[in-house]
Amino acid sequence: MTDERDAQARELARAARIVDHLEARNRPKRGRPGHDLGAVLAAAVRLFNERGYEATSMDDVARRLGITKSSLYHHVTGKEELLRIAVDQALDGLYEAMDEVDGLAAPALDRLETLIRRSVLVLADRLEYVTLLLRVRGNTAVEQQALLRRRIFDAKVTELVKQAQAEGAIRPDVDAATAARLLFGMVNSLIEWYSPQRGGAAQLADAVTTIAFDGLRTRQ
Amino acid sequence: MTDERDAQARELARAARIVDHLEARNRPKRGRPGHDLGAVLAAAVRLFNERGYEATSMDDVARRLGITKSSLYHHVTGKEELLRIAVDQALDGLYEAMDEVDGLAAPALDRLETLIRRSVLVLADRLEYVTLLLRVRGNTAVEQQALLRRRIFDAKVTELVKQAQAEGAIRPDVDAATAARLLFGMVNSLIEWYSPQRGGAAQLADAVTTIAFDGLRTRQ
Repeated sequence: MTDERDAQARELARAARIVDHLEARNRPKRGRPGHDLGAVLAAAVRLFNERGYEATSMDDVARRLGITKSSLYHHVTGKEELLRIAVDQALDGLYEAMDEVDGLAAPALDRLETLIRRSVLVLADRLEYVTLLLRVRGNTAVEQQALLRRRIFDAKVTELVKQAQAEGAIRPDVDAATAARLLFGMVNSLIEWYSPQRGGAAQLADAVTTIAFDGLRTRQ
Repeated sequence: MTDERDAQARELARAARIVDHLEARNRPKRGRPGHDLGAVLAAAVRLFNERGYEATSMDDVARRLGITKSSLYHHVTGKEELLRIAVDQALDGLYEAMDEVDGLAAPALDRLETLIRRSVLVLADRLEYVTLLLRVRGNTAVEQQALLRRRIFDAKVTELVKQAQAEGAIRPDVDAATAARLLFGMVNSLIEWYSPQRGGAAQLADAVTTIAFDGLRTRQ
Protein backbone atom coordinates (compact mmCIF):
# COMPACT_ATOMS: atom_id res chain seq x y z
CA MET A 1 0.00 0.00 0.00
CA THR A 2 2.82 2.42 0.97
CA ASP A 3 4.94 1.22 -1.97
CA GLU A 4 2.00 1.76 -4.28
CA ARG A 5 1.51 5.25 -2.88
CA ASP A 6 5.22 6.05 -3.26
CA ALA A 7 5.10 4.87 -6.85
CA GLN A 8 2.06 7.02 -7.50
CA ALA A 9 3.75 10.03 -5.84
CA ARG A 10 6.82 9.55 -8.04
CA GLU A 11 4.63 9.27 -11.14
CA LEU A 12 2.78 12.46 -10.21
CA ALA A 13 6.04 14.31 -9.60
CA ARG A 14 7.33 13.17 -13.00
CA ALA A 15 4.10 14.24 -14.70
CA ALA A 16 4.23 17.61 -12.92
CA ARG A 17 7.75 18.18 -14.27
CA ILE A 18 6.54 17.38 -17.80
CA VAL A 19 3.70 19.87 -17.39
CA ASP A 20 6.14 22.54 -16.12
CA HIS A 21 8.31 21.95 -19.15
CA LEU A 22 5.41 22.09 -21.61
CA GLU A 23 4.05 25.20 -19.95
CA ALA A 24 7.41 27.00 -20.04
CA ARG A 25 7.68 26.20 -23.76
CA ASN A 26 4.16 27.39 -24.49
CA ARG A 27 4.08 30.45 -22.23
CA PRO A 28 1.91 33.20 -23.77
CA LYS A 29 3.75 36.20 -25.21
CA ARG A 30 1.44 38.74 -23.68
CA GLY A 31 0.77 37.45 -20.17
CA ARG A 32 -2.58 36.65 -18.60
CA PRO A 33 -5.84 37.92 -20.11
CA GLY A 34 -6.22 41.69 -19.69
CA HIS A 35 -9.35 43.65 -20.53
CA ASP A 36 -9.20 43.19 -24.30
CA LEU A 37 -7.85 39.67 -24.35
CA GLY A 38 -10.64 38.82 -21.90
CA ALA A 39 -13.28 39.82 -24.44
CA VAL A 40 -11.48 37.93 -27.22
CA LEU A 41 -11.26 34.87 -25.01
CA ALA A 42 -14.92 34.96 -23.99
CA ALA A 43 -16.06 35.20 -27.63
CA ALA A 44 -13.71 32.42 -28.74
CA VAL A 45 -14.75 30.05 -25.95
CA ARG A 46 -18.42 30.61 -26.70
CA LEU A 47 -17.80 29.79 -30.38
CA PHE A 48 -15.66 26.73 -29.56
CA ASN A 49 -18.47 25.43 -27.32
CA GLU A 50 -21.19 26.17 -29.89
CA ARG A 51 -19.50 24.77 -33.00
CA GLY A 52 -16.57 22.73 -31.72
CA TYR A 53 -12.93 23.84 -31.64
CA GLU A 54 -12.03 22.16 -34.96
CA ALA A 55 -14.94 23.76 -36.81
CA THR A 56 -14.19 27.29 -35.57
CA SER A 57 -11.74 29.51 -37.49
CA MET A 58 -9.95 32.70 -36.45
CA ASP A 59 -12.15 34.39 -39.10
CA ASP A 60 -15.22 33.25 -37.13
CA VAL A 61 -13.78 34.66 -33.89
CA ALA A 62 -12.92 38.02 -35.52
CA ARG A 63 -16.39 38.22 -37.10
CA ARG A 64 -18.11 37.48 -33.77
CA LEU A 65 -16.09 40.30 -32.14
CA GLY A 66 -16.66 42.68 -35.04
CA ILE A 67 -12.91 43.25 -35.48
CA THR A 68 -10.46 42.45 -38.28
CA LYS A 69 -8.40 39.30 -38.25
CA SER A 70 -5.19 41.35 -37.93
CA SER A 71 -6.61 43.06 -34.81
CA LEU A 72 -7.32 39.60 -33.45
CA TYR A 73 -3.71 38.53 -34.07
CA HIS A 74 -2.62 41.55 -32.05
CA HIS A 75 -3.99 39.69 -29.00
CA VAL A 76 -3.00 36.09 -29.67
CA THR A 77 -0.67 34.14 -31.93
CA GLY A 78 -3.46 31.88 -33.16
CA LYS A 79 -6.34 29.56 -32.42
CA GLU A 80 -4.24 27.10 -30.43
CA GLU A 81 -3.06 29.87 -28.08
CA LEU A 82 -6.71 30.86 -27.53
CA LEU A 83 -7.51 27.25 -26.65
CA ARG A 84 -4.55 27.01 -24.28
CA ILE A 85 -5.38 30.20 -22.38
CA ALA A 86 -9.04 29.14 -22.23
CA VAL A 87 -8.50 25.64 -20.82
CA ASP A 88 -5.91 27.06 -18.41
CA GLN A 89 -8.62 29.34 -16.98
CA ALA A 90 -10.43 26.16 -15.95
CA LEU A 91 -7.39 24.11 -14.96
CA ASP A 92 -5.73 26.92 -12.99
CA GLY A 93 -8.93 27.32 -10.96
CA LEU A 94 -8.97 23.62 -10.11
CA TYR A 95 -5.23 23.55 -9.36
CA GLU A 96 -5.51 26.59 -7.07
CA ALA A 97 -8.23 24.73 -5.17
CA MET A 98 -5.95 21.69 -4.96
CA ASP A 99 -3.00 23.81 -3.74
CA GLU A 100 -5.17 25.45 -1.10
CA VAL A 101 -6.34 22.05 0.10
CA ASP A 102 -2.77 20.68 0.13
CA GLY A 103 -1.82 23.48 2.52
CA LEU A 104 -4.53 22.64 5.08
CA ALA A 105 -3.49 20.93 8.30
CA ALA A 106 -6.68 18.84 8.32
CA PRO A 107 -7.69 15.19 7.97
CA ALA A 108 -7.86 13.89 4.37
CA LEU A 109 -11.67 13.70 4.50
CA ASP A 110 -11.95 17.42 5.31
CA ARG A 111 -9.45 18.29 2.60
CA LEU A 112 -11.40 16.17 0.08
CA GLU A 113 -14.67 17.79 1.08
CA THR A 114 -13.12 21.27 0.74
CA LEU A 115 -11.73 20.34 -2.67
CA ILE A 116 -15.14 19.13 -3.91
CA ARG A 117 -16.83 22.26 -2.60
CA ARG A 118 -14.22 24.56 -4.16
CA SER A 119 -14.40 22.65 -7.45
CA VAL A 120 -18.17 23.20 -7.66
CA LEU A 121 -17.55 26.94 -7.17
CA VAL A 122 -14.85 26.97 -9.87
CA LEU A 123 -17.21 25.22 -12.31
CA ALA A 124 -20.09 27.56 -11.53
CA ASP A 125 -17.79 30.59 -11.93
CA ARG A 126 -15.93 29.46 -15.08
CA LEU A 127 -18.63 27.31 -16.66
CA GLU A 128 -17.82 28.00 -20.33
CA TYR A 129 -14.10 27.37 -19.75
CA VAL A 130 -14.68 24.11 -17.90
CA THR A 131 -17.19 23.03 -20.57
CA LEU A 132 -14.48 23.52 -23.19
CA LEU A 133 -11.91 21.71 -21.02
CA LEU A 134 -14.16 18.68 -20.53
CA ARG A 135 -14.71 18.35 -24.29
CA VAL A 136 -11.01 18.39 -25.13
CA ARG A 137 -10.05 15.10 -26.77
CA GLY A 138 -6.31 15.42 -27.31
CA ASN A 139 -5.78 16.11 -31.03
CA THR A 140 -3.20 18.88 -30.53
CA ALA A 141 -0.26 19.50 -28.16
CA VAL A 142 -2.37 21.98 -26.19
CA GLU A 143 -5.17 19.42 -25.81
CA GLN A 144 -2.75 16.67 -24.78
CA GLN A 145 -1.25 18.95 -22.16
CA ALA A 146 -4.74 19.77 -20.84
CA LEU A 147 -5.58 16.06 -20.67
CA LEU A 148 -2.34 15.43 -18.78
CA ARG A 149 -3.15 18.17 -16.23
CA ARG A 150 -6.64 16.64 -15.83
CA ARG A 151 -5.11 13.21 -15.22
CA ILE A 152 -2.78 14.61 -12.56
CA PHE A 153 -5.74 16.32 -10.86
CA ASP A 154 -7.78 13.09 -10.94
CA ALA A 155 -4.85 11.11 -9.51
CA LYS A 156 -4.60 13.60 -6.64
CA VAL A 157 -8.32 13.22 -5.91
CA THR A 158 -7.91 9.42 -5.86
CA GLU A 159 -4.92 9.86 -3.53
CA LEU A 160 -7.04 11.98 -1.13
CA VAL A 161 -9.76 9.29 -1.12
CA LYS A 162 -7.12 6.64 -0.33
CA GLN A 163 -5.68 8.75 2.49
CA ALA A 164 -9.15 9.26 3.97
CA GLN A 165 -9.71 5.49 3.76
CA ALA A 166 -6.37 4.87 5.50
CA GLU A 167 -7.47 7.32 8.23
CA GLY A 168 -10.69 5.31 8.62
CA ALA A 169 -12.90 8.23 7.61
CA ILE A 170 -14.10 6.87 4.23
CA ARG A 171 -15.64 3.42 3.84
CA PRO A 172 -13.09 0.90 2.59
CA ASP A 173 -15.59 -1.05 0.44
CA VAL A 174 -15.65 1.50 -2.40
CA ASP A 175 -12.65 1.53 -4.75
CA ALA A 176 -10.82 4.87 -4.37
CA ALA A 177 -10.38 5.56 -8.09
CA THR A 178 -14.05 4.73 -8.76
CA ALA A 179 -15.15 6.99 -5.91
CA ALA A 180 -12.99 9.83 -7.29
CA ARG A 181 -14.51 9.42 -10.77
CA LEU A 182 -18.07 9.33 -9.43
CA LEU A 183 -17.50 12.40 -7.21
CA PHE A 184 -16.27 14.38 -10.19
CA GLY A 185 -19.03 12.86 -12.32
CA MET A 186 -21.44 14.72 -10.04
CA VAL A 187 -19.35 17.90 -10.03
CA ASN A 188 -18.72 17.93 -13.79
CA SER A 189 -22.38 17.31 -14.58
CA LEU A 190 -22.90 21.01 -13.77
CA ILE A 191 -21.79 21.87 -17.31
CA GLU A 192 -24.91 20.07 -18.59
CA TRP A 193 -27.51 21.85 -16.51
CA TYR A 194 -26.18 24.67 -14.30
CA SER A 195 -27.04 28.20 -15.31
CA PRO A 196 -24.86 31.01 -13.88
CA GLN A 197 -27.90 33.34 -14.04
CA ARG A 198 -29.63 31.05 -11.59
CA GLY A 199 -26.91 31.46 -8.95
CA GLY A 200 -26.98 29.35 -5.81
CA ALA A 201 -23.50 27.88 -6.35
CA ALA A 202 -22.85 27.64 -2.60
CA GLN A 203 -26.09 25.67 -1.99
CA LEU A 204 -25.18 23.46 -4.95
CA ALA A 205 -21.78 22.79 -3.36
CA ASP A 206 -23.65 21.86 -0.16
CA ALA A 207 -25.90 19.46 -2.08
CA VAL A 208 -22.94 17.75 -3.77
CA THR A 209 -20.96 17.30 -0.55
CA THR A 210 -24.06 16.18 1.39
CA ILE A 211 -24.81 13.45 -1.16
CA ALA A 212 -21.14 12.49 -1.57
CA PHE A 213 -20.31 12.10 2.12
CA ASP A 214 -23.61 11.49 3.92
CA GLY A 215 -25.90 10.18 1.17
CA LEU A 216 -29.54 10.97 0.49
CA ARG A 217 -31.04 8.43 2.92
CA THR A 218 -32.59 9.81 6.11
CA ARG A 219 -30.78 8.62 9.24
CA GLN A 220 -32.92 7.05 11.97
CA MET B 1 -47.51 19.90 -2.89
CA THR B 2 -50.22 17.50 -4.13
CA ASP B 3 -51.48 20.12 -6.61
CA GLU B 4 -47.96 20.58 -7.87
CA ARG B 5 -47.54 16.83 -8.22
CA ASP B 6 -50.88 16.54 -10.07
CA ALA B 7 -49.82 19.33 -12.43
CA GLN B 8 -46.52 17.57 -13.03
CA ALA B 9 -48.29 14.25 -13.65
CA ARG B 10 -50.60 15.93 -16.19
CA GLU B 11 -47.62 17.54 -17.90
CA LEU B 12 -45.82 14.20 -18.09
CA ALA B 13 -48.93 12.48 -19.50
CA ARG B 14 -49.25 15.20 -22.13
CA ALA B 15 -45.56 14.90 -23.04
CA ALA B 16 -45.90 11.10 -23.24
CA ARG B 17 -48.78 11.50 -25.71
CA ILE B 18 -46.64 13.83 -27.86
CA VAL B 19 -43.83 11.28 -27.82
CA ASP B 20 -46.27 8.49 -28.80
CA HIS B 21 -47.49 10.62 -31.69
CA LEU B 22 -43.97 11.47 -32.88
CA GLU B 23 -42.91 7.85 -32.58
CA ALA B 24 -45.88 6.57 -34.56
CA ARG B 25 -45.08 9.09 -37.31
CA ASN B 26 -41.40 8.16 -37.39
CA ARG B 27 -41.74 4.39 -36.99
CA PRO B 28 -39.01 2.54 -38.91
CA LYS B 29 -40.08 0.75 -42.08
CA ARG B 30 -38.16 -2.39 -41.26
CA GLY B 31 -38.73 -2.95 -37.57
CA ARG B 32 -36.13 -3.27 -34.81
CA PRO B 33 -32.48 -3.94 -35.64
CA GLY B 34 -31.97 -7.46 -36.99
CA HIS B 35 -28.59 -9.04 -37.61
CA ASP B 36 -27.55 -6.83 -40.54
CA LEU B 37 -29.11 -3.62 -39.32
CA GLY B 38 -27.32 -4.26 -36.02
CA ALA B 39 -23.92 -4.15 -37.77
CA VAL B 40 -24.92 -1.02 -39.72
CA LEU B 41 -26.07 0.62 -36.52
CA ALA B 42 -22.91 -0.23 -34.57
CA ALA B 43 -20.68 1.19 -37.33
CA ALA B 44 -22.80 4.36 -37.65
CA VAL B 45 -22.86 5.00 -33.90
CA ARG B 46 -19.11 4.57 -33.63
CA LEU B 47 -18.61 7.09 -36.46
CA PHE B 48 -21.14 9.54 -34.99
CA ASN B 49 -19.29 9.40 -31.66
CA GLU B 50 -15.84 9.74 -33.27
CA ARG B 51 -16.59 12.59 -35.68
CA GLY B 52 -19.92 14.02 -34.60
CA TYR B 53 -23.32 13.31 -36.17
CA GLU B 54 -23.27 16.42 -38.39
CA ALA B 55 -19.80 15.68 -39.75
CA THR B 56 -20.62 12.03 -40.66
CA SER B 57 -22.15 11.22 -44.05
CA MET B 58 -23.92 8.08 -45.29
CA ASP B 59 -20.88 7.69 -47.58
CA ASP B 60 -18.67 7.49 -44.48
CA VAL B 61 -20.93 4.83 -42.94
CA ALA B 62 -20.97 2.74 -46.15
CA ARG B 63 -17.17 3.05 -46.46
CA ARG B 64 -16.65 1.95 -42.84
CA LEU B 65 -18.83 -1.11 -43.46
CA GLY B 66 -17.20 -1.86 -46.81
CA ILE B 67 -20.57 -1.86 -48.60
CA THR B 68 -22.07 0.36 -51.29
CA LYS B 69 -24.29 3.29 -50.39
CA SER B 70 -27.25 1.60 -52.12
CA SER B 71 -26.75 -1.49 -49.93
CA LEU B 72 -26.79 0.83 -46.94
CA TYR B 73 -30.10 2.34 -48.07
CA HIS B 74 -31.51 -1.19 -48.20
CA HIS B 75 -31.32 -1.11 -44.37
CA VAL B 76 -32.34 2.45 -43.51
CA THR B 77 -33.99 5.42 -45.17
CA GLY B 78 -31.15 7.76 -44.23
CA LYS B 79 -28.83 9.21 -41.61
CA GLU B 80 -31.63 10.58 -39.46
CA GLU B 81 -33.27 7.14 -39.22
CA LEU B 82 -29.92 5.70 -38.09
CA LEU B 83 -29.71 8.37 -35.41
CA ARG B 84 -33.27 7.70 -34.26
CA ILE B 85 -32.84 3.93 -33.98
CA ALA B 86 -29.50 4.48 -32.19
CA VAL B 87 -30.73 6.91 -29.54
CA ASP B 88 -33.83 4.72 -29.05
CA GLN B 89 -31.51 1.83 -28.11
CA ALA B 90 -30.40 3.97 -25.17
CA LEU B 91 -33.75 5.54 -24.35
CA ASP B 92 -35.70 2.28 -24.59
CA GLY B 93 -33.27 0.70 -22.11
CA LEU B 94 -33.81 3.52 -19.63
CA TYR B 95 -37.59 3.53 -20.15
CA GLU B 96 -37.77 -0.24 -19.65
CA ALA B 97 -35.95 0.25 -16.34
CA MET B 98 -38.43 3.00 -15.43
CA ASP B 99 -41.43 0.80 -16.37
CA GLU B 100 -40.05 -2.08 -14.30
CA VAL B 101 -39.62 0.23 -11.32
CA ASP B 102 -43.12 1.69 -11.77
CA GLY B 103 -44.52 -1.81 -11.44
CA LEU B 104 -42.82 -2.51 -8.09
CA ALA B 105 -44.97 -2.46 -4.95
CA ALA B 106 -42.12 -0.92 -2.95
CA PRO B 107 -41.34 2.37 -1.17
CA ALA B 108 -40.19 5.21 -3.44
CA LEU B 109 -36.63 5.01 -2.06
CA ASP B 110 -36.31 1.35 -3.08
CA ARG B 111 -37.75 2.09 -6.51
CA LEU B 112 -35.31 4.98 -6.96
CA GLU B 113 -32.38 2.81 -5.88
CA THR B 114 -33.46 0.06 -8.31
CA LEU B 115 -33.78 2.62 -11.10
CA ILE B 116 -30.27 4.00 -10.48
CA ARG B 117 -28.83 0.48 -10.36
CA ARG B 118 -30.61 -0.56 -13.57
CA SER B 119 -29.57 2.67 -15.30
CA VAL B 120 -25.90 1.97 -14.55
CA LEU B 121 -26.32 -1.48 -16.11
CA VAL B 122 -28.04 0.00 -19.20
CA LEU B 123 -25.19 2.51 -19.63
CA ALA B 124 -22.52 -0.15 -19.20
CA ASP B 125 -24.32 -2.41 -21.69
CA ARG B 126 -25.19 0.23 -24.32
CA LEU B 127 -22.32 2.64 -23.75
CA GLU B 128 -21.90 3.85 -27.35
CA TYR B 129 -25.63 4.43 -27.75
CA VAL B 130 -25.93 6.35 -24.48
CA THR B 131 -22.81 8.38 -25.38
CA LEU B 132 -24.53 9.41 -28.61
CA LEU B 133 -27.78 10.17 -26.77
CA LEU B 134 -26.05 12.40 -24.21
CA ARG B 135 -24.38 14.44 -26.97
CA VAL B 136 -27.63 15.10 -28.83
CA ARG B 137 -28.26 18.84 -28.92
CA GLY B 138 -31.61 19.13 -30.68
CA ASN B 139 -30.90 20.35 -34.21
CA THR B 140 -33.27 17.91 -35.94
CA ALA B 141 -36.73 16.48 -35.22
CA VAL B 142 -35.17 13.19 -34.12
CA GLU B 143 -32.85 15.01 -31.72
CA GLN B 144 -35.66 17.13 -30.31
CA GLN B 145 -37.72 14.01 -29.72
CA ALA B 146 -34.77 12.37 -27.93
CA LEU B 147 -34.33 15.45 -25.76
CA LEU B 148 -38.05 15.36 -24.91
CA ARG B 149 -37.83 11.70 -23.88
CA ARG B 150 -34.79 12.55 -21.73
CA ARG B 151 -36.70 15.39 -20.07
CA ILE B 152 -39.63 13.08 -19.28
CA PHE B 153 -37.23 10.53 -17.78
CA ASP B 154 -35.53 13.23 -15.67
CA ALA B 155 -38.91 14.51 -14.47
CA LYS B 156 -39.84 10.99 -13.38
CA VAL B 157 -36.59 10.66 -11.43
CA THR B 158 -37.30 13.99 -9.70
CA GLU B 159 -40.82 12.74 -8.94
CA LEU B 160 -39.39 9.58 -7.31
CA VAL B 161 -37.04 11.69 -5.16
CA LYS B 162 -40.00 13.86 -4.07
CA GLN B 163 -42.08 10.78 -3.22
CA ALA B 164 -39.22 9.34 -1.16
CA GLN B 165 -38.92 12.70 0.64
CA ALA B 166 -42.68 12.69 1.32
CA GLU B 167 -42.30 9.15 2.73
CA GLY B 168 -39.53 10.45 5.03
CA ALA B 169 -36.87 8.21 3.49
CA ILE B 170 -34.80 10.90 1.74
CA ARG B 171 -33.49 13.98 3.54
CA PRO B 172 -35.73 16.99 2.92
CA ASP B 173 -32.87 19.54 2.86
CA VAL B 174 -31.70 18.65 -0.68
CA ASP B 175 -33.81 19.99 -3.55
CA ALA B 176 -35.38 17.03 -5.40
CA ALA B 177 -34.58 18.25 -8.92
CA THR B 178 -30.97 19.00 -7.92
CA ALA B 179 -30.63 15.56 -6.32
CA ALA B 180 -32.01 13.91 -9.48
CA ARG B 181 -29.52 15.82 -11.67
CA LEU B 182 -26.57 14.96 -9.42
CA LEU B 183 -27.56 11.27 -9.24
CA PHE B 184 -27.62 11.04 -13.02
CA GLY B 185 -24.47 13.19 -13.16
CA MET B 186 -22.76 10.27 -11.43
CA VAL B 187 -24.48 7.65 -13.59
CA ASN B 188 -23.90 9.46 -16.89
CA SER B 189 -20.23 10.09 -16.10
CA LEU B 190 -19.69 6.43 -17.05
CA ILE B 191 -19.56 7.45 -20.71
CA GLU B 192 -16.36 9.38 -19.93
CA TRP B 193 -14.39 6.63 -18.24
CA TYR B 194 -16.12 3.20 -18.20
CA SER B 195 -14.69 0.53 -20.45
CA PRO B 196 -16.99 -2.42 -21.30
CA GLN B 197 -13.89 -4.64 -21.61
CA ARG B 198 -13.19 -3.95 -17.96
CA GLY B 199 -16.53 -5.34 -16.83
CA GLY B 200 -17.63 -4.99 -13.22
CA ALA B 201 -20.87 -3.18 -14.04
CA ALA B 202 -22.68 -4.71 -11.04
CA GLN B 203 -19.96 -3.54 -8.60
CA LEU B 204 -20.09 -0.12 -10.24
CA ALA B 205 -23.86 -0.01 -9.70
CA ASP B 206 -23.17 -0.88 -6.03
CA ALA B 207 -20.63 1.96 -5.76
CA VAL B 208 -23.05 4.49 -7.26
CA THR B 209 -25.97 3.52 -5.02
CA THR B 210 -23.73 3.33 -1.93
CA ILE B 211 -22.44 6.86 -2.48
CA ALA B 212 -25.86 8.19 -3.51
CA PHE B 213 -27.83 6.83 -0.56
CA ASP B 214 -25.31 6.24 2.24
CA GLY B 215 -22.41 8.51 1.34
CA LEU B 216 -18.69 7.84 1.54
CA ARG B 217 -18.23 8.79 5.19
CA THR B 218 -17.66 5.94 7.65
CA ARG B 219 -20.44 5.65 10.25
CA GLN B 220 -19.37 5.54 13.90
